Amino acid sequence: MTNMLNVDQAKGLVAEALVASNTSLPNAASVAAALVNAELWGQMGHGLRRTVAYAAQARAGKVDGHAIPQAEQPRPGLLMVDACQGFAYPALDLVMDRLPSMAVSQGIAMAGIRRSHHCGVTGLVVDALARKGLVAMMFANAPASMAPWGGNRALFGTNPIAFATPVEGDEPLVVDLSLSKVARGKIMAANQKGEPIPEGWALDKDGQATTDAQVGLDGFMVPAGDAKGVALALMVEMLCAGITGANYSYEATSFFNAEGDPPGVGQSIIAIDPSAFGPHIAERLTSLVTAVAETEGARVPGARRHGLAKRIETEGIKVDDALLAEIQAISA
Amino acid sequence: MTNMLNVDQAKGLVAEALVASNTSLPNAASVAAALVNAELWGQMGHGLRRTVAYAAQARAGKVDGHAIPQAEQPRPGLLMVDACQGFAYPALDLVMDRLPSMAVSQGIAMAGIRRSHHCGVTGLVVDALARKGLVAMMFANAPASMAPWGGNRALFGTNPIAFATPVEGDEPLVVDLSLSKVARGKIMAANQKGEPIPEGWALDKDGQATTDAQVGLDGFMVPAGDAKGVALALMVEMLCAGITGANYSYEATSFFNAEGDPPGVGQSIIAIDPSAFGPHIAERLTSLVTAVAETEGARVPGARRHGLAKRIETEGIKVDDALLAEIQAISA
Repeated sequence: MTNMLNVDQAKGLVAEALVASNTSLPNAASVAAALVNAELWGQMGHGLRRTVAYAAQARAGKVDGHAIPQAEQPRPGLLMVDACQGFAYPALDLVMDRLPSMAVSQGIAMAGIRRSHHCGVTGLVVDALARKGLVAMMFANAPASMAPWGGNRALFGTNPIAFATPVEGDEPLVVDLSLSKVARGKIMAANQKGEPIPEGWALDKDGQATTDAQVGLDGFMVPAGDAKGVALALMVEMLCAGITGANYSYEATSFFNAEGDPPGVGQSIIAIDPSAFGPHIAERLTSLVTAVAETEGARVPGARRHGLAKRIETEGIKVDDALLAEIQAISA
Repeated sequence: MTNMLNVDQAKGLVAEALVASNTSLPNAASVAAALVNAELWGQMGHGLRRTVAYAAQARAGKVDGHAIPQAEQPRPGLLMVDACQGFAYPALDLVMDRLPSMAVSQGIAMAGIRRSHHCGVTGLVVDALARKGLVAMMFANAPASMAPWGGNRALFGTNPIAFATPVEGDEPLVVDLSLSKVARGKIMAANQKGEPIPEGWALDKDGQATTDAQVGLDGFMVPAGDAKGVALALMVEMLCAGITGANYSYEATSFFNAEGDPPGVGQSIIAIDPSAFGPHIAERLTSLVTAVAETEGARVPGARRHGLAKRIETEGIKVDDALLAEIQAISA
C-alpha cells in the first residue's frame, strides 16, 4: 500500500522521528524541510527514506543532532562554516541566510562547510540562490566510491556539481549531476532486487567490468566521461573538502549506517551577482535557455522537474507502508 | 625536415609575423609568449601553428591587433574585462596582473572577459595563478560544435574547464579538459590524413554516429559523459559568456579563418586564496595529490607534463619546414 502525505504531514513525520532521536527541534525541522523538498523534486533517494539512517546516526552520536553551525567571515567574500558534525541542512540554511548579501556586495562570494554530513540534493541549494537573482555553483563530496583513472583504490565520491542561473519569467535553470556514470542508488536498487546491472555502471575491486550489483558496490563506480569524470571529481574534492578543511571522500565514513566516526565531509557554494556585469545580463542568461528549449529534440536540464513539485504538493508525497511504519516506529 | 627553435627564436618568429600583420608590438609579444608556452606544455594544437590564422585575422581586422584591453571593477571581487575584439592573451595578462591581489583581499575574486578571442591552453592560466598560491578555475567557450543532448543544432563549444591548486614542494596540480569526448583537433588531423575516425568521436548533422572525419566536422562533437558533458558545457557557457556579456558559442565565428565578424567569445577565471581557510590548508591540498600519486596504476592529472617544459626548453621547439616557411613568409 502507498500512502499519500501532504507536505506538512511529511515534515511532521520526519521531524518527530528526529526529535525522538536526540535531535533539537530546529535541526529536526531543517532536516525535515530538506528531505521533503527532495521528494518534491522527485529525488526520492535523498528524501524521506533517509530518515531512518539519520535517526540511527543521531542516536549513536555519529551525527550531533544538537549541533549549532558556526560561521566566520575571514575575508569579505568568504564564509567559513563549521557544521560541528551535525546535519548538513542547518549549515546550508546558515549559508542561505548570509551568502546572498555577500555575493551582492562583493560580486562573488563563497561559503565552505566542513565537519558536515550528507547534503541531499545539491540542485535545491543553487536553485534557492538563483531565485534570489544569483548565479550559483555547488560542490560536495561523499564517501569514496570511485578510483582515480587506472587506479584500484576508491579515493573520490560520486561528487556532485550543481549550477543554477535565474531565467526571466521562468523557473531557474538547474544543472545537477554526479560524476559517476549512473547514480549509486541505481546499483543499490538492483542489488536489493537481486538483479544484474548493465556493463559500464561499475567495476569490481580489481577495476574490471562487472554486472553483479553487489560486486560493483564492493568495487568502484564508473566515472561519467571516463578519465575526465575522475579529473572533475578530484577538482570537486579540492573545492569542497581540500580548501574547506573537511574530510576527503576516502577519509569519510558511510552516510547510511551509524558506525564509526562522523563522516565530516564538506560542501562549497559559490554565488555570483550577474547584475554586477550590467543590466542586460539577465536577458542574456535567459536567451541561452531559450535557444536550448527551441532546439528540436533537446530539453533544458532540469525542465522535467518544472511543475513536478506543484503536482506532488497537490497530489501528496508517496510513502509505502513499510517505510511509513519504520519511520513512525522511531518516535513510537 | 624538422627545425629546433629555442624559446627566444620561437617567440621572435611569432612576434615578427604578427607585427607584420597589423598588430602592436606589445600584443604580438603577449601572443608569442602564450603560443610558445603552449608548445612547452606539449599542446601543439594551441602553439606556433596558430600564428598563420592569427596573422590572417589581424590583417583582415577580424581580430584587432592594436586593441588595449580595458578593465573595470564594478564590485570588490569582480573584474570586468573588455578584450576589445583583440587577442585574448593581452586580456589574460591584465587578469594575471590584477586578479591575484583581489583574491587575496576578498578571499575569492572573478574576472570575466568579453569580446575576446581564442584563449589557447586554459591550464596555463590556472597554473600561473596556482604558482601564486591560489586555487583557480577557468571556463571558456569556442565556436559551437556540440548539440544539446538529443538535439541537432550546435549550440556549445567544446568549452574547457581548467582547475589548479598549489602543491607544497611540487608543480601545481592542473586539471584541464574539454567537454567533448575527444579534442576537435584529433578529428581535424584524421581529416587531413584522409583517415576514418573511431565511432563515438563525432556525429553527422542528423545526430547519427559517423566514422567519416569530414562528416563529423560538419556535424557535432560527441560530449564527454554524454548528457552530463553537455550539461556542463551549458554551465561553462553561462559562466564565461552569459554573465560576462560575451558571445555564446553559437554566435561566435571561427578561430581558424579570417571571415566574418570577430568571434567575441568569453572567458572567466575564478581565484580563491586557500590560506584564508587556515594555515593548514596548503598541507591538506597536497595530501590529496599524494594520495592519488600513491594509488597503484593511477596518475596525477597533468603530471606527464611535469618536466616536459624543461626538456623542450633544452632540446628546442620542433617546427617542421612547411610551417616555418609559412610563418616566415608572413613577415617577409
